[in-house]
Order: sequence, then C-alpha cells, then structure tokens
Amino acid sequence: MARDVATLIAGARDGRTRDIARLISLIEDGSAQVPAVMADLAPDTGRARVIGITGSPGVGKSTTTAALISALRERGERVGVLAVDPSSPFSGGALLGDRIRMQAHATDPGVFIRSMASRGHLGGLSATTPQALRVLDAAGFDTVLIETVGVGQSEVEVAAAADTTLVLLAPGMGDAVQAAKAGILEIGDVFVVNKADREGADSAVRELRNMIALGDHPARGWKPPVVRTVASTAEGVGHLVTAIDEHGAWLRESGEGHVRRLRRARDEVEALTLAIVRRRLETGTSSSQLEAAAAEVAAGRLDAHTAAARLVDGV
Amino acid sequence: MARDVATLIAGARDGRTRDIARLISLIEDGSAQVPAVMADLAPDTGRARVIGITGSPGVGKSTTTAALISALRERGERVGVLAVDPSSPFSGGALLGDRIRMQAHATDPGVFIRSMASRGHLGGLSATTPQALRVLDAAGFDTVLIETVGVGQSEVEVAAAADTTLVLLAPGMGDAVQAAKAGILEIGDVFVVNKADREGADSAVRELRNMIALGDHPARGWKPPVVRTVASTAEGVGHLVTAIDEHGAWLRESGEGHVRRLRRARDEVEALTLAIVRRRLETGTSSSQLEAAAAEVAAGRLDAHTAAARLVDGV
Repeated sequence: MARDVATLIAGARDGRTRDIARLISLIEDGSAQVPAVMADLAPDTGRARVIGITGSPGVGKSTTTAALISALRERGERVGVLAVDPSSPFSGGALLGDRIRMQAHATDPGVFIRSMASRGHLGGLSATTPQALRVLDAAGFDTVLIETVGVGQSEVEVAAAADTTLVLLAPGMGDAVQAAKAGILEIGDVFVVNKADREGADSAVRELRNMIALGDHPARGWKPPVVRTVASTAEGVGHLVTAIDEHGAWLRESGEGHVRRLRRARDEVEALTLAIVRRRLETGTSSSQLEAAAAEVAAGRLDAHTAAARLVDGV
Repeated sequence: MARDVATLIAGARDGRTRDIARLISLIEDGSAQVPAVMADLAPDTGRARVIGITGSPGVGKSTTTAALISALRERGERVGVLAVDPSSPFSGGALLGDRIRMQAHATDPGVFIRSMASRGHLGGLSATTPQALRVLDAAGFDTVLIETVGVGQSEVEVAAAADTTLVLLAPGMGDAVQAAKAGILEIGDVFVVNKADREGADSAVRELRNMIALGDHPARGWKPPVVRTVASTAEGVGHLVTAIDEHGAWLRESGEGHVRRLRRARDEVEALTLAIVRRRLETGTSSSQLEAAAAEVAAGRLDAHTAAARLVDGV
C-alpha cells in the first residue's frame, strides 16, 4: 500500500475528518488502492449502527436528519451521515434554512457529513455506499445515517440494507399510496409522518397504520410504529429516537440484526463481484471478446444469449 | 427446443399476435427456453426501426405514441409498441380518453402493443426489453416504439439504445431544466414540445433550443430539431414523422445507425453476461461460496473486495 494511503487510514482511525473524506473520495473514484484500504479496515468494522432514511422529495428527510444528529449528539454519540440524494441540501440543493441547520453540525468534530454521488465508478451506489459506511464504521462513529431519496431500485436496496430503515411521509401528499407503489412501504422499520402540524396528519397516520396492518411486512415479530414529528422544531424527535432504539434492541434480541448484517455483506460482495466482471467486459481483458460478440449479434449471425454464455466462462 | 415453443416461433414469424405475446411472456418469466428462442430468431432480426419515446409523466407520451401509430399505419407500416412505464395506459394506468384511443389500435392486426414489467427476471429492463424487441423485429414489424418514463438509469439506457430517441416535454412544467437534470436532454435525437396549444409553448421551445445549442450533444453532425405537437388532435404529428424519417436517413448516411446497433448488441450481451453471473451467485453454483464469503466479511475477517475477487474466478 502507498505510504500516503497508510497515513490516511491511520488518520481516519483517529477520527480525522479530512482523512475520512479523502478515503471516501478514493472509493468514489474507484481507486486501485481501495481493496487494500478495505482489507486494512475490515477488522475494525461491524460496530456502527446504520440507519437508513428514505422518502419522497419534500417530506423533510434532511431536516429530520439534522434533528436526529442533534438528538444523538446530545447523548454523546459520534454521528456520520451519507447523503445519497441529488436533491439533498448536503449535495448543494439546499434551501437556506436547511443549510443553516446543517452548518451548525458541519463545524462539530463529532459529526461527519458526506454527500455521495448517486452513480459511483465501481458498481454504482450499491457498492460505494457500503464501502463508505465501512470507513465511517472503522473511524468509530456510533451511528451512521444514510439518507436516500425514495426513488430507484438501488436506493431502496441501500435503505433496506440498513439496520433500521425510517420511511418518511408528509400529510396531504397521498404519500402512503405513493410509498406503497414505490415499494418503500415494506422496507420501513419505523414510519415517520413529518410536518405533523399540517392538516391531514391524522388521516396520514391512520392510512399508514391500515396499510401496515394489511401489509406483509417481511420482518416477522416487529410491528413498525408510526411516529409523528415536526422535524423543523424537533417536536417528536425524542419519540423517534426511542422508536429507533427499540428497534435496535429487537434486532439484537431476535437475531434479525445478525441476519441483516449478513445480507448487507452478501449484497456488497455480490455488487463488487458484478463490478469486477463489468469492468473486465468494458475496459479489461474481456472487452475485445465482447466487441467481437456484439458485432456477430448485430449482424444476426449469433444470438445474445449464446454470446453471453460464452463470455461468462472467459471473463 | 420444446415442440410448443417451435410452434410459437413459427406463429410469431407469421405475425400472429397471440404467439408474439406468449414469446414475450417467456422472456419476462426468464424461461429456460429463451436462449433457444433467441438463437432461432437471430437471423431474422436487424430490420425494424426502433424509436424510443421518453419524458416525464404527464407530457403526453402515450397520446403521442397513439398518434404516431396512426400516422405510421396510414402509410402501411406494421407497428409494435413496448411500453416500459408503470404509469402508461398500456399498463393499466390509463385515463379514459387514452384507453379509447388505444383500443382503436388494439383490434388492428398491424399493431402489436405490449406493456413490459419494469423489472424483469433476467437482467432487468436492460435485458428483457431488447429481447422483446428482437421478437417484434423477427415478426416483421417495420417500426417498434419503446415508451419509457424518463426516470431511472435503465430506462434512459433503453431509450439511448433506440435508433431514434424522442424526448417529450410540455409547456409550463419547467421541463427543459428537469430534462437536463434527469440526463435525458443529451439522449434526444428529436425533441417534442407537446400540448403546444398551451401557454408557455413558445418559451419552452426557445428554452429547449438554447439548451440544445449550448449542450454537448454526443451525436456530432445531427442537430436535434424541436417539433411542436398537440398529440391529442394529431396536430404537428406529420412534422414529427418527417423529423423521425430525416433522422433515420442521417443514421444511414453517417454510419451512426450502424454504431448504435453495435452498441445496442454490446449492451444486450453485457447485460445478459452479468445476469448469468448474478444468477450463479444468487441461486446457482456460486451461491454457497457467496454465503460463506459474506459470513467472513460480516465478521470482519475478510474484506468484501478480496472476497469478490476470489468469487469472480469461481463463478
């Protein structure tokens, strides 16, 4: 490993913000150093609690994230945030009020906030985010919040791979139905009706409870609670933290936590394996075979399946 | 090959709607027969003109599709439609007016309309749609329209793989900016401002022309025209067909058409190759190695990269 990378790793282990940020940049850039970095960090991972935060644009994900950071900081936790959302204030798409709220955390050495590109080089979102998560885990953050906009399969996958996934909705957006359509209803461990001071909050909560009761929630033994918040004034955020803690306790006691971590590792290894194959096909040792096969397929002399089956054994 | 599948193929070659539909269902179901079907059809493919139609919900994609079907039918073309859009009327999410317009085509033996699930079994959208396209191609359709909602990477990829991609916008939706954000501006070969009888049509056309002039359109030598339509009354649809034809002529003369077909074949073979690897990892010969590797990674005894690198050579 290059000496400067070893220095970065040592700095990240000490919780130095700049070194953590530079390690994550290596991951996003698909640096050849990444495998060595991850191998070095592996023994220090598996401690952080990972919380996914998802929901449609406008429901208040970033405000809720900011409120959660404050609440967790108050009890002394170190908090990392990975924002995988092009419209997130972390990514520059902020309203002024949000920016000011984040700024307060940005100068706190116990908080690390990072916006992740939604399409990374090495296997996309599904590979870069778990790796960035491992960096924060190894750097000793107690909780890592992953904020994803609730659109797109890979984002749903990231949220589903968290220990605890919060699904946020807001009153009057027909959101429960939208959430059901987007497939994010079944991934929620805790539901949050944010902006609960607005009209329609009661019916949103009721509608959600009905859908949860009817739904086939995959994690047996855990009935997802519905928490009301007004994240902009921190109202209800205490209850939200309690709900998250209760889910954490259930994860430990039921064994489901172990199951989720296994699944997360499995998904990460699978994504990286596919990324290696894709890289070989696109730029590596198999790219000329792929080009040759494509020419045969385009000419109608070979079908794509046969071409693919031959390629698999060559990559 | 099973005898009933051979019968389906013969029927599809004769243009029998029911057999075509059943072959596409085999593809969507990820049937083990698919490779044999595709191998059999391969020599008859490469003739159909493929037109992608994309844009945000509400811009009138389905109405435009219906109007294009009518215009192409008038000059005697056989037209296939693959609708990859959960909100499309073809998929059941129709307004009554749209349904009635489609119904007229549904009984026309020269028109085949099929809604594709947005997530298929074998490699997702990026693998099932090109295969369905090949079925329609082999069945002798002159033009195949692929309607995709302009959201999500794989849908953009499908549109980009068409011979000619139409990007639809409507006035007063801030759509040019949205299109730029969604990354669909650079894939448009022909831009359509639909609902052009509405206020704001002039400024939408102007805004679009500016963005096209400023933009870095990848296909050098072709300046994407902006066509105004009111698809519900067929106004401007003649001009749209002319623009599509002109783009088709340019594709042939410039050699870009051949480049696109090669790229489409390449993307299809790559998607199928990755699908085979994924299937082996998830349910096949490599799944137990993946599970074992995941357990090591979750325990911090192995990093995901090393695990993936070992798996690649075993799949």
